[in-house]
Amino acid sequence: MTDLPPTPRTEVRRIAERGVYDRAVINAILDEALICYVGLNHNGRPAVVPTVHARLGDTLYIHGSPASRMLRQMKRGAEICVTTAIIDGLVVARTPFHNSMNYRSVIVYGSPRFVDDPEEKMAAFAAITEHVIPGRWVDSRPPNDKEVTGTLIVAITLDEASAKVRVGGPKDEPEDYDLPIWAGVVPVARVYGKPIVDDDLRVTVAVPDYLTDYHRRDH
Amino acid sequence: MTDLPPTPRTEVRRIAERGVYDRAVINAILDEALICYVGLNHNGRPAVVPTVHARLGDTLYIHGSPASRMLRQMKRGAEICVTTAIIDGLVVARTPFHNSMNYRSVIVYGSPRFVDDPEEKMAAFAAITEHVIPGRWVDSRPPNDKEVTGTLIVAITLDEASAKVRVGGPKDEPEDYDLPIWAGVVPVARVYGKPIVDDDLRVTVAVPDYLTDYHRRDH
Repeated sequence: MTDLPPTPRTEVRRIAERGVYDRAVINAILDEALICYVGLNHNGRPAVVPTVHARLGDTLYIHGSPASRMLRQMKRGAEICVTTAIIDGLVVARTPFHNSMNYRSVIVYGSPRFVDDPEEKMAAFAAITEHVIPGRWVDSRPPNDKEVTGTLIVAITLDEASAKVRVGGPKDEPEDYDLPIWAGVVPVARVYGKPIVDDDLRVTVAVPDYLTDYHRRDH
Repeated sequence: MTDLPPTPRTEVRRIAERGVYDRAVINAILDEALICYVGLNHNGRPAVVPTVHARLGDTLYIHGSPASRMLRQMKRGAEICVTTAIIDGLVVARTPFHNSMNYRSVIVYGSPRFVDDPEEKMAAFAAITEHVIPGRWVDSRPPNDKEVTGTLIVAITLDEASAKVRVGGPKDEPEDYDLPIWAGVVPVARVYGKPIVDDDLRVTVAVPDYLTDYHRRDH
């Protein structure tokens, strides 16, 4: 667990105090964020595709199938950018200029590597499954060779990554604090509801504990 | 309210049945999504920045300040891609290969236009404020000239936009339906909690109704 040195691109210039290069902070945000957004150049034009990720140590694995057409482009060595933001609150200031959000975001830059090694690919597949639903991997029918082959997974290292975090209440202009205007924070969270059984479930199986008591890994 | 013709880039090739070009669907997703992710080329490399948006008719306005360094790049005429995804459920299949999510996503491509006209800029500022907290704009201290000038807003038209929507349960291999494995959907939603008053609130003001009974516009 080492801190990452800021690079010219990940260095947070605009709001320096919100920039975080601590690896533990970056890891925790990546682990908690349900999905991520992958930016790449598609025929020279920017494209952003939402997908699922998982982190194993210093490597971020990205599930490629939702973007296979574009991920094939990356085989030519193009760089990608992976961004995710967890929204924790709406910051309600006295004037719209100071409205903000409390959030924890991560931006990772890197050149993707296609995961071909069967052992690494299976580990990444398991990590992505467990990222979304901790406990599910060992409770599923394991992937067969065709499914492993058909799953596109790319890896980027977390060498060039940074986080941004905002917490707390609004920061208004001094003269506005006397205005009769409410100010504060509306908490925001993602919630996971009661599992809905598949209409086509033919067997008698209880809802697994890891779904009735769903929570993200380490959180 | 017209449907958009698919262009080569927005045409959904991989999973054609999930592609939606209906303008009403695209608008509803953009209006409901709390934030968006802006992809652009930054010195020739892809970058993805989360920010706040609002739609007015056929125009998508994007709040620029979180990315001002990169948005300045766009002044040179570079294209952007704006993507957002609302996650509605975790689709729990019998095997990891068929795990999925229920989601509603939109991808918009376009060349951004910097909003300079004071009237349009104020309307966009109001729309972005109301996008996040419907009812707040008229209940705040209006922006002064300095704040309007200091707020960077860009516009792109919704000419080249598409949505993708997945609903329903898992689609497993026929032979897997007899396995003693639970399958179904875990609902996912973003929730907005009880407002927390600013520690520095000096005046006596009740929490506004639009915060205690918070809901996104049209939803």
